[in-house]
Amino acid sequence: MVLDLGQIYNGPYCSLLLAHMGARVIKIEPPDGESMRQRLPGEEIPAFVLMNSHREGLALDLKDPDGHDIFMRLVAEADVVIENYAEGTMERLGIGYDALAAVNPRIIVGSGKGFDPEGPWAGRLAMDLTVQAMTAVMSVTGFPDMPPVKAGAQIADIMGGVTLAVGVLGALHQRSRTGEGQHVKVSMQDAVIPALASNIAGYLETGGTLPERTGNRQNGLAVAPYNVYPTSDGWVAIFCVSEPHWHKLLDVMGERDRFGGEEFATMPRRAARMDEIDAVVESWTKVRTVEEILEILDASRIPSAPLLHVSDLLESQWFRRDGGMLEHVPHPTLHDARAFGSPIRLSASERRAITRAPYIGEHTGLVLSGDLGLTDDEIADLRRRGVVK
Amino acid sequence: MVLDLGQIYNGPYCSLLLAHMGARVIKIEPPDGESMRQRLPGEEIPAFVLMNSHREGLALDLKDPDGHDIFMRLVAEADVVIENYAEGTMERLGIGYDALAAVNPRIIVGSGKGFDPEGPWAGRLAMDLTVQAMTAVMSVTGFPDMPPVKAGAQIADIMGGVTLAVGVLGALHQRSRTGEGQHVKVSMQDAVIPALASNIAGYLETGGTLPERTGNRQNGLAVAPYNVYPTSDGWVAIFCVSEPHWHKLLDVMGERDRFGGEEFATMPRRAARMDEIDAVVESWTKVRTVEEILEILDASRIPSAPLLHVSDLLESQWFRRDGGMLEHVPHPTLHDARAFGSPIRLSASERRAITRAPYIGEHTGLVLSGDLGLTDDEIADLRRRGVVK
Repeated sequence: MVLDLGQIYNGPYCSLLLAHMGARVIKIEPPDGESMRQRLPGEEIPAFVLMNSHREGLALDLKDPDGHDIFMRLVAEADVVIENYAEGTMERLGIGYDALAAVNPRIIVGSGKGFDPEGPWAGRLAMDLTVQAMTAVMSVTGFPDMPPVKAGAQIADIMGGVTLAVGVLGALHQRSRTGEGQHVKVSMQDAVIPALASNIAGYLETGGTLPERTGNRQNGLAVAPYNVYPTSDGWVAIFCVSEPHWHKLLDVMGERDRFGGEEFATMPRRAARMDEIDAVVESWTKVRTVEEILEILDASRIPSAPLLHVSDLLESQWFRRDGGMLEHVPHPTLHDARAFGSPIRLSASERRAITRAPYIGEHTGLVLSGDLGLTDDEIADLRRRGVVK
Repeated sequence: MVLDLGQIYNGPYCSLLLAHMGARVIKIEPPDGESMRQRLPGEEIPAFVLMNSHREGLALDLKDPDGHDIFMRLVAEADVVIENYAEGTMERLGIGYDALAAVNPRIIVGSGKGFDPEGPWAGRLAMDLTVQAMTAVMSVTGFPDMPPVKAGAQIADIMGGVTLAVGVLGALHQRSRTGEGQHVKVSMQDAVIPALASNIAGYLETGGTLPERTGNRQNGLAVAPYNVYPTSDGWVAIFCVSEPHWHKLLDVMGERDRFGGEEFATMPRRAARMDEIDAVVESWTKVRTVEEILEILDASRIPSAPLLHVSDLLESQWFRRDGGMLEHVPHPTLHDARAFGSPIRLSASERRAITRAPYIGEHTGLVLSGDLGLTDDEIADLRRRGVVK
């Protein structure tokens, strides 16, 4: 059993992965809902529905002594607690790791952090924007003659969440030998750093002489063609990893006369004349549609890819199928509700049929009666006093 | 025991996380080295060293019948095999999941894929560039009046790798109950999709009326100030989540007269006049240094962050400490070799002291004698015939 105190994306994504693999997850929110619900109070939020399938919803006031007591009774039965509150919040609520381990030494607490609480950036507010700024992701993203720009995806939240799931499962594995739980911490900043492997290695190799940002060109500016080119109706990524790719591209573009010579015959020579090469590829792509270009390049087995939009993902029958990454989930109030599927395909496990994210407190009664044996009268009293919802 | 056939970043990062948590990992490369080593044959590669600590290095020709036999004997003893070859390669080498499970039904095979092999994009070459194009990460990154641009970090490789580690550990957990292994597959494309939570939810909420790319502004264009602003010596992220933040910012900028009125008094009103607000904040930041600005904003507890560069990360004493994310590792030939630490902090586990990535075949003799009981003569013969290195 996993008790999920997660909010927004970081903690909830960790719990979602565990839930997809079969864990029972009780999502515990304050009576007015977790932060994500605050955006549109009283309404269902598409982002909340995306991230909170496979949860039982329990709304509980942890600041109330009776609410605290209910939480601790659940902890005594649980395997895992997931949280991504600001540093110090768990302790202020009297539910820090030590307090939980005192009632259940087997408990594993997974804490999603923004920055390492012991490091020099500990005090900074951790949101996706600030973590991207302080991991150098921003400094390496964008065009060299333009300002740095964030990755438009919430990579810090999600990389932190999935890495936390690795730590929690590692701790479960260890517990199967030692019988003891532990506190697992993963900061978003630490989780993002390994994605800078090429940037860091490039800096170490060259002493920082390469531009930090290379747009859509290869980080080391060592491969050409390698870019995203405009077409008459969108964008297409094209790159030539090997000599045969280059020669086939010259043939389909009809440019062997101008570009087939010795001055373009090796990758280093092409890389040195990247501007000319990008210009000729672009002159060929921009008068054709994405579909035409892909048909021609695929036929010649030249590496390429269309640039897809969010709308393309949502319209994809593959993604919206049962078990797809953006599965349609029937919802009473939202028109086209989607829920994140599992990116993990397990050959020996049945897929868990997707469930709608809970309404606030949807399963409060079931959990209090089923797990803790509370009577209907006791639950009604807790509700009346606002301890649960 | 983990047998790591991973190459470049995706598979190796999965194995690295398992190794940091204590797994014994044997990295199995072809006698001429995995793809990453091909970049500079005969030299040690900083990116390889970053990603391959805690490995025993075994160089083995899987295409040779004796090499295949050695691999299968190791599989019989192993818990996990990690690979991220192109689709079909494992089967062509006679080491597909079914072949491995036949000699060891407890084996867990973790396969890192680019695109779902059963999906519509299965045939496309999966590299970080193409996966970013085909997940819409590129379409949501950059400024609205500029072309789409990739995230400069290798997020597809790394998110795929860490998600694969979740699946492998989940399968280990399941094996502890069932006694049986299974095949775990994670595609980079699927692993990246959840990082688009805000973009997807925003599309569902508005029907696609918001711009796909918002530069460094909030995805929903609903918060102001929220941007990355130029300073006299760099960039700083500033955002005002709540009313007090806004009022304190007006005070430190000395702009209460011009911007303290009713027309800026609520978040929706400020969001509607985002250009004016960004202009006044920029006029204040651009004549100050990052350090001055942070000192002023920190004193008033206004959320902000400096934009760090790769060089800042490498110079950080926190990151280069023992156990840091960019730990310095002594290396005979590389000047300032670094290795990725673990983003996972486990309270009940000793940190594993970092080790240098192996040279090609550095532990071949040790593994063949220690694990398989081969004699020195047998090993010498295999070397002579090029089956191992």
